[in-house]
Amino acid sequence: MTPPTHTAFRSVVALSGGVGGAKLLDGLARALDPDRLTAIVNTGDDFTHWGLHICPDLDTVMYTLAGLSHPTQGWGLAGESFEALAMIRRYGAPGWFQLGDRDLGTHIARTLALRDGQTLSQITDTLCRALNVRHPILPMADAPRPTFVDTDSHGALPFQDWLVLHRAAPAPRAIRFEGPPTPTPAALDALHRADLVIITPSNPYVSIDPILALDGVRDALRHLPVLAISPILGGRAVKGPLADMIPALAAKPPSARAVFDHYGDLLDAVALEADDADQIPPGLPGLATSTLMGDRDDRARLAFELLDFAAERLR
Amino acid sequence: MTPPTHTAFRSVVALSGGVGGAKLLDGLARALDPDRLTAIVNTGDDFTHWGLHICPDLDTVMYTLAGLSHPTQGWGLAGESFEALAMIRRYGAPGWFQLGDRDLGTHIARTLALRDGQTLSQITDTLCRALNVRHPILPMADAPRPTFVDTDSHGALPFQDWLVLHRAAPAPRAIRFEGPPTPTPAALDALHRADLVIITPSNPYVSIDPILALDGVRDALRHLPVLAISPILGGRAVKGPLADMIPALAAKPPSARAVFDHYGDLLDAVALEADDADQIPPGLPGLATSTLMGDRDDRARLAFELLDFAAERLR
Repeated sequence: MTPPTHTAFRSVVALSGGVGGAKLLDGLARALDPDRLTAIVNTGDDFTHWGLHICPDLDTVMYTLAGLSHPTQGWGLAGESFEALAMIRRYGAPGWFQLGDRDLGTHIARTLALRDGQTLSQITDTLCRALNVRHPILPMADAPRPTFVDTDSHGALPFQDWLVLHRAAPAPRAIRFEGPPTPTPAALDALHRADLVIITPSNPYVSIDPILALDGVRDALRHLPVLAISPILGGRAVKGPLADMIPALAAKPPSARAVFDHYGDLLDAVALEADDADQIPPGLPGLATSTLMGDRDDRARLAFELLDFAAERLR
Repeated sequence: MTPPTHTAFRSVVALSGGVGGAKLLDGLARALDPDRLTAIVNTGDDFTHWGLHICPDLDTVMYTLAGLSHPTQGWGLAGESFEALAMIRRYGAPGWFQLGDRDLGTHIARTLALRDGQTLSQITDTLCRALNVRHPILPMADAPRPTFVDTDSHGALPFQDWLVLHRAAPAPRAIRFEGPPTPTPAALDALHRADLVIITPSNPYVSIDPILALDGVRDALRHLPVLAISPILGGRAVKGPLADMIPALAAKPPSARAVFDHYGDLLDAVALEADDADQIPPGLPGLATSTLMGDRDDRARLAFELLDFAAERLR
């Protein structure tokens, strides 16, 4: 049964990377009508592979909201096949990035539309409509804005090279963004209309910071109630390299508190795993609950809790 | 059981388009050791689709010799899936050309290698090795040499647009080839070393003529014994639009004889379906036999018959 929608906020904007953000967005999309929720999604991970323009975070969010994402592996589509990849590997061409056959269809359609002169925003809208995604998903930027990981051992690595090809092994010294820091007009407009901003439990350095670094985003957030959910639970990241990035980039052990400190005075409230309640920054309202999102009902449960908490403490 | 190989000829070159040519090549490959048979394959049908460089005839020949081709449909791979295509159609992107998932792997690998600066010859060699194809398959040309179909109703159409998108409906007025008429050095070299040329039962206008129109090919053939097999059986083409093209381009009914007349004095012998024995051009040795190739054994049977016939009549 669909739960009743939450109406305390007119317009919630969620900043998101891939998996963790997508799961929370999936819950928020069940708690909020499509005109009350907008996702602004990191495009710093976008890259070209096999000549195709790939947007890992946009696709993870899109597939997740479409109910098509793989239930456990955290990327890609449920029931996906890998026939093209198998042939490419057989030919000795680069097969280090796992692209499924249906996923390939997405990248081909996007790449053709980009060559045709459409913006990433327009294309994302087309793809989402085709997959019956009802809530707006906005790329943070239309122009490429690639994230680079500066390392001592391998120099500056494009993000996907660092993450997938090098398995996030080279210690990051700094994270840099290249290209124009121009948000999409729709993203900036959504922030200007928002009455609540949720920073989803995505990686702060490589999923959320790319959004925050765009012109006008931090300024907009300073005038809005901002609630961040920790991607670190009990000192560990649910997925991805974050737990190793915090010591490397912030010289402290991985913790929910380290993430909140990273966002600093942008935050007006936080949410984190119940066992981590001691990590709530002094002076900030904090919701300690179960944040490890399992199935879709559990995601919706967390979304309602967050919205109730925000309605109570941030208005 | 593998039949003994045929040793009457040191070096047989077969000119080939897609399906019909590929079937006969499959038989010839069982009759001749890899150092005694070279395929020169039409690349006039090559085109770009979904941003990928597609070589329909090269792929049909390669898949067929690899034993991977679809047993009945005449193109593509056996047991192929179409997951990427289904997604692309769902997104409303061009889905009129059926590309399977494994086939897509071939086109992606080829396109990447072309961008990398490799020649089509080098790439074809790499792909064939990966698929354990033992007989050399040579593209007729490395540079694009696209075939156009001039029509009254739709103007000049690129070949695949005419064949697939327009289902070969607009009557052809003429066939034209664009781009430099330069054969690959390996193809020309194979012809200079050949002691028999077989024109496979492919479409003379759009599969064989593109090869014959390259610099030096007709000259080479004039000094060699040439055996052509008719792609027309009982006035009909086994596959494809040839039966309608002959009336449109040659103003005569479709027949084996019309095909042989088209090749004219290049031919030293012909082979055709037993019932069409009256179509053998006067003065030319003709083999009337079963040319409708079924399974792989039947293809090998025809190949041995052709080679025996050529050994007897053309040396």
